[in-house]
Formats: sequence, structure tokens, C-alpha cells
Amino acid sequence: VVTRFDEETRTAITHLLLPDLRAALETNPESAVALFDELHGADAADLLARMEIEEVHRLMMHFPAPEAARILEFVDPSTAVRYLEETPGERTADILEEMDPDEAADLISHLEEKEQAEILGQMEREEREDAEELLRHGEDTAGRLMTQQYVTVRLDDTAAAALEQARVAAREEWSVGAVFVVDEDEVLKGKLTLRSILAAHPDTPVREVMEDLPPAVHVDVDQEQAASIMSKYDLITLPVLDDHDRLVGIVTVDDVVDVLIEEGTEDVQMLGAMEPLEHPYFETSFWSLTRKRGLWLSLLFLAQTLTGNILHHNSKILADWIWLAIFLPLIISSGGNSGSQSATLITRALAVGEVHIRDFLRVLYREVGTGFALGVFLGGLGIIRALLWKTGIDVALIVMLATLAVVTMGTLIGSMLPLIFKKIGLDPAITSSPFVASLVDISGITIYLLIARAVLM
Amino acid sequence: VVTRFDEETRTAITHLLLPDLRAALETNPESAVALFDELHGADAADLLARMEIEEVHRLMMHFPAPEAARILEFVDPSTAVRYLEETPGERTADILEEMDPDEAADLISHLEEKEQAEILGQMEREEREDAEELLRHGEDTAGRLMTQQYVTVRLDDTAAAALEQARVAAREEWSVGAVFVVDEDEVLKGKLTLRSILAAHPDTPVREVMEDLPPAVHVDVDQEQAASIMSKYDLITLPVLDDHDRLVGIVTVDDVVDVLIEEGTEDVQMLGAMEPLEHPYFETSFWSLTRKRGLWLSLLFLAQTLTGNILHHNSKILADWIWLAIFLPLIISSGGNSGSQSATLITRALAVGEVHIRDFLRVLYREVGTGFALGVFLGGLGIIRALLWKTGIDVALIVMLATLAVVTMGTLIGSMLPLIFKKIGLDPAITSSPFVASLVDISGITIYLLIARAVLM
Repeated sequence: VVTRFDEETRTAITHLLLPDLRAALETNPESAVALFDELHGADAADLLARMEIEEVHRLMMHFPAPEAARILEFVDPSTAVRYLEETPGERTADILEEMDPDEAADLISHLEEKEQAEILGQMEREEREDAEELLRHGEDTAGRLMTQQYVTVRLDDTAAAALEQARVAAREEWSVGAVFVVDEDEVLKGKLTLRSILAAHPDTPVREVMEDLPPAVHVDVDQEQAASIMSKYDLITLPVLDDHDRLVGIVTVDDVVDVLIEEGTEDVQMLGAMEPLEHPYFETSFWSLTRKRGLWLSLLFLAQTLTGNILHHNSKILADWIWLAIFLPLIISSGGNSGSQSATLITRALAVGEVHIRDFLRVLYREVGTGFALGVFLGGLGIIRALLWKTGIDVALIVMLATLAVVTMGTLIGSMLPLIFKKIGLDPAITSSPFVASLVDISGITIYLLIARAVLM
Repeated sequence: VVTRFDEETRTAITHLLLPDLRAALETNPESAVALFDELHGADAADLLARMEIEEVHRLMMHFPAPEAARILEFVDPSTAVRYLEETPGERTADILEEMDPDEAADLISHLEEKEQAEILGQMEREEREDAEELLRHGEDTAGRLMTQQYVTVRLDDTAAAALEQARVAAREEWSVGAVFVVDEDEVLKGKLTLRSILAAHPDTPVREVMEDLPPAVHVDVDQEQAASIMSKYDLITLPVLDDHDRLVGIVTVDDVVDVLIEEGTEDVQMLGAMEPLEHPYFETSFWSLTRKRGLWLSLLFLAQTLTGNILHHNSKILADWIWLAIFLPLIISSGGNSGSQSATLITRALAVGEVHIRDFLRVLYREVGTGFALGVFLGGLGIIRALLWKTGIDVALIVMLATLAVVTMGTLIGSMLPLIFKKIGLDPAITSSPFVASLVDISGITIYLLIARAVLM
């Protein structure tokens, strides 16, 4: 079922433009530029992504600055920097002036340091100062994510004045979702959603319809926390305050949607035991990908050589009881799997705020309990398998006890590590499944051989 | 650094109300209800979560219906159903009438089937029809996620008329982000953001300022796709159309933020090899948690018993060459780890649209290349470790070749499975790290022993 409006149709229509666009670019670049007029910025960005980089460089020379800005706001900043490589600094500055300050600052931060200073020097004062202000805040903070394009009224103003301010914002193409109420020192006093402004009688003073003490964040707050607050309170705009509760910017929901997707990707990649990629999959170079994976793989490999040491130390019992070697992968992988489950569960629950560090004991009881229950069940399966293989009762007993112990321990390690990492200020997502599996392998083999010795000797 | 507005302060202040609230609830329930007047719905929901269920039941009896609705919109629907357990059907119907239709439908869908019919029967006709319409659409579709609370104008109307419609919506407390332009058959013709309405001269016909063919989705589209379109086009509202391109609802961005978080949690839990939980961690019962984890663990355990069969079949060579058993965990876990990385990478890239099924060959070349490079490196580490242990050159050679082969194969399996699962209509996130690790264990042991036999015999 398709409609004329759906994304696939839009994408297909956009791509049909490609041959015309290429032909026009050869003969008459102005008419090539005109082909973009009717396209949504996001569709135009799609189209650029399908072109050769040299073609994009040529288009960037011919786009009017506002048109280039409109499209580049939908392009990943590292890609946008590549698009602008051949564009003279002065023109790049013109384009950045037309972009939202947060998008402009994001793009500038992806330039080489030398270029940053050069481009900023060529921007108009107001836009330059806005960008510099944002760049002063750390990456991934609310202060970097915010924009300064918002409007304010005073406590004594009326709903009509607030609506007039919303009109001013609309003509500047700023966010009009809310008008903020501040005192003479720019200290935030309240928030007016456009809904409350429109619903109120024009003469109503804003203090009667505003929300007092609306949810807000400090400039230094992590962007992930800003996103979680906007999600909790269902906000379209979130005010950002300095140390004195003065309004210095707003975070808009479209940025938060991007943050959620980006942070989700980072978490998932860390859970897969690799350094997060900075760019989309196909835009990451082969060697960068290999390096980001190789680092963790090598660490895990070196840790795993410990399993060899332990087994080497027990060569004799292994050679005498070959059944022990046969059941080894089964038992340690069960511990790794249950540990992976716990680690994933707790890491995600921490990320979305369902679990906090203070819940340490509750998590401990719950996970050890679950691990024990799972261990009893899998141990039962293990003893059945061993008896069917006629390993003898001693080996069957070892398999059952070891499975129970290793699964319980895996759950314990997997659930506690994210909490411990968070507590000491590391990202809980370091507790990847392979990381947990390796730890459980090492301790699991030890437990397994201890149990075997106890039963057999 | 805190401000008076930040979430922690708000939460702390809210919790200070708890003793007063409890005292009031004992003596004078009306005054307990009054304590909620000044609280944001999300904070009020937090407060309810800290109370005993019996206390919440009593509060629900005394809340005016609009107040109960305002708070319940911020409560997880399965929890909201528990809160309303003791509330008579007629009152529950009153509360649902005051909620946004999408939230009301969500709550109703969490009731027992018998109760659903009873409650719907007690609702006013208009609200009942809205809810029934939403419930007709499948779970996780745009048609279920949307709301019918939007306003429309015709092509010949002016910007002033559109603003008047926005006022109507505002007084009804509907979303005012956009006004939609439809023809006499309700077919979508265009979209007016509130920004474009405010920026336009009041007499301008809407057809001159509207966006033609705005991005939209069909009612049957998956909610995850609706979210990705809103993210791509930076939308606050997304129109939802029926088979004839008639506007039947809108999806608002706050729902999309919730969808992104919910789908992120599901994906992460599946990647951790468990069935996704339906409720937050601590609200999931011990046995439900154990069951959802036990299912996958048992399947993986049974699959892993195959490793025992393979090893059993090779008992003699293992007993003769105990070094082979000693290196076994190291080699197969390297394959599992590299496979986990690939699986996680490709699953996430598929989820966010960076990779599509048509990229099959590109992914194949890239991942096999990366796997080979990683395998050469880890194989190098392996041969060094073996030589340091003085295993003899034949075992060292086996370790190197087996590591190279198993890591390359792990990467191949890990990267191809998500694409294959997606192709046959399954969720690619089934390709969890433990799942990949188990598959690689089985095939890795086979490869390892084949290489060992080739070298030693």
C-alpha cells in the first residue's frame, strides 16, 4: 500500500531527477540549482548523497547561500565538511550564517582547528558570537546542542504581545513552539506554549497563563539527560540555563530525536564490543572499522589466553578424563550467555532510567535469584544429556553442578559490572556480551575444574 | 551544578509532598487531590509510582476525571490499568474520554478483552468511535499511534482562517504544530506549519504558503518507520493517510520519542539473547523474567550440546594432543567475538537505515575483508603465544590457521545473518551475540579439528 506522499515514492521521484541534474550541471549550472527549489531539504540531501563528490563541489559553488544552508542542515556534519572542501572560506562563512547556530557550530566543530578560526573570522559578528558561544560548551552537552534562536517576553506582557513575539520568530524561521518569560536579568520565570498563547484572551497577562518553573537543564548537562527529560515531560522545546538560572538557549525536539538515535547506535556498538563508529557504516573507512574492532578483539584475545593457562595447569586431569574437555564449551558458553543477558538488561535499564545505582542490592538479589533458577534448569538439561551419553554418574554430577555454578556466576558478573562501571564514572555499555563472556570463560573454567577435582579425587 | 528547574530538584520537591499527601488521604481526600493541582503530569505520575497501590486506588476515586486523565497520560499503560482496577467502569469511561484518543486506545488495549467491550460501551459516542478506530489498526502501526485531534482548512482558505483553526485546536488542548489542507473528500493537499501561518499576511491564501505533498505515511506503516521519517524530515507532526490519501490522523513527535526509546530497548534486549520485556525491569515479575531468558538460554544450550558431539567424535586426537583442548576456548571465543561485532554493527545499521538488503554484496566483501584482516592479526598473536608456551611448531601453526579461519567465518556468519533474517521477514535483532557465538562455536570447533587433523596426520 503506498500513497503519493510516502517516503519511498518521494525518494524514487527525487532520484528520477538525477540524469536531468547531471546534464544541467554540465551545460547550465543555474538551471541545475533551480531543480532543488521544490525539494524538501532532506530529499535534496539524499540527492546530493547519490552524486559524485566533484559534482557536489560544483553545485556548492552555484547554490545561493540560504539554499545551501537549507540543504546542509539535513547532512551529517562530517559529510557537509567534505561537500564544502572546495568552497572558498568567505562563501562557507556566508552559508554558515544562514544556518541555525547549533547546526553551524556542529559543522564548524568538524573542521580542522586552523580552518575553524579562519571561517569564524569571516562570519558576521552576531552569527560568529552565537557559534563561538556554543563551541565553548563540551561536546554532547545541552549547551552545545541548544540554539539561541528563541523569543522572550516579560512577566507584565500580555498574550497578544507573546503572540507578536511568536510572529517575529516565525518570520526569522525560528522555532515557534514556545515563548519564554524572563525578568530584567534574563532569569527564566516561566514558559508559554504556543497552545496556551492561542487559547488565552489577547489581553490576559502572561503570568496568568504561563507554566511556572518549567522543566529546564543547565548548559553542562549531558545531551542524553536532556533527551530523557524532554521525553519524560513530552516537551517540544527545553530551556537551557546558565549558573544564575538565566535563559541562554533552547533545545528543540528534532535534535533530541537525533540524539536518541545516535546514542542508541553508540550503546549498541559498545554492547557488541567495539569502539563506537563516528560515521555511518558505509562512510567509515575499512581501516578505521578494522582498528575500532581490533582493539577490543585483541584485549579479549589476550584475556582469553588465561583460559589456556588454567587448562594447561590441569592438563593431567583433562587427559585422564576426556569427558571434561568435551563438556567444556557447553558449560562455559551457558555462563557467558546468561551473563550477556544480565549485562544487556541492566545496561539498557540504566540508560533509560529504569534502574539506578542505588538499586544495587535489589538488582543483586533479583539477578542471582534468576541466575540460580536458570542454572537449576540448564543443569537439569545437562545431567540428562550426560546420562544419555553414558558418561558415568560422576561426570554427570560435575556437569550439573558446574552448569548451575557457572550460570549463577555469569548472571552475577553480568548484572553487577554495569552498575560498578557506572559508579566509577565509566559507560556501563562497556559491559558487552563478548566482554562478559570472556570473563565468565576464565572464571567458569576455574570453577568447572575445581568441581571436577572435588568430585573425582 | 543545579538550577531550581532541573529534574532532580523537581523530583526531590515532589517527593517531599509524600508525607503530607498520605496524611491528607487518611483524613480529607479532597485536600489530597488538591496537592496534585500544581504538579506537572509527569511529576504527579512519579509521585503515584512511590505510593502503595491501595493509596493510588483511593486517589483515583477522588480525582476529577480531567485531572486523572492528565496524570495517566504520563503513566505506562499497563501500570495505568492497575491504578484503575478498583475504579468503577463508568468512571473509568469518563477518564478515558478526557484523554487523547491515542493514549486512551493504548490503555484500553491493555485491559482484558471483556473489560474492553464494557468500558467502550460506557464511553460517549464520539470518543468511543475515535478509540475504536485506532484499535482497528495493528499494534505498532502508525494507525494505532496516531490521534484524530487535528484541524484542517480548505485550499481557498486564508492564513487568518488557518490561525483561527489553530486557536480552536489550542482551546481543545490539541496539538497546534500544524494545520492540514484537504479537499472536499478529506484528501490531503498540503501542510501549514504554525510558523508559516504566523509568518504569512493574514489574507494570503493557504495554497500559497502551504507545503505541497508533505511527507506522510499510510495507516498500516510500522511505527518504527513513521519515527524514522519524522526524524529524517525533522517533523513535529506527521499526517497519516488511508488507502485513498484521505487524512485520518496525525502522529506527534512525543509519541515518536517514546517509540524510539521503546524500540531501542527491544533491540538491545534481543541482541542480549532474550525475549523483549513488556514492562520496565523492576515491574517485570521474577518468573516472567526467568521465562523470557530461559527460552533462549535453553535453545542455545541444546544447540551447544552439538559441540560435545563433535568433540566426542574426536576424543582420540584430543587425548593424544592435549594442547588442542587447551587452545580450544581461546580460538572459538575469538570467532564468537568478531561475529558478535559484525552482527551488532549490521543489525543496528539496518535499524537506522544506513544499510539495506540490496547492499548484501557490499557488506559481504567489506566484512569478510575486515574479518580476514582481524584474523591475520589475532592469528599472529596466537602463534606468538603458542611458541612462547613451547607447544611445538605444528600446534603453533594449527592455532594460527584456526584463528584466522574461525575469525573470518565468525565475521561472515555475524554479518550475513541479520540480512538473511530481514530478507525472510524476521527481526534482524534475533542475531544476538550469544546466538552468533553458539553458531560459531559449533562451526569453529569443526574447522579447528579439521585443520588439526590436516597438520598432524
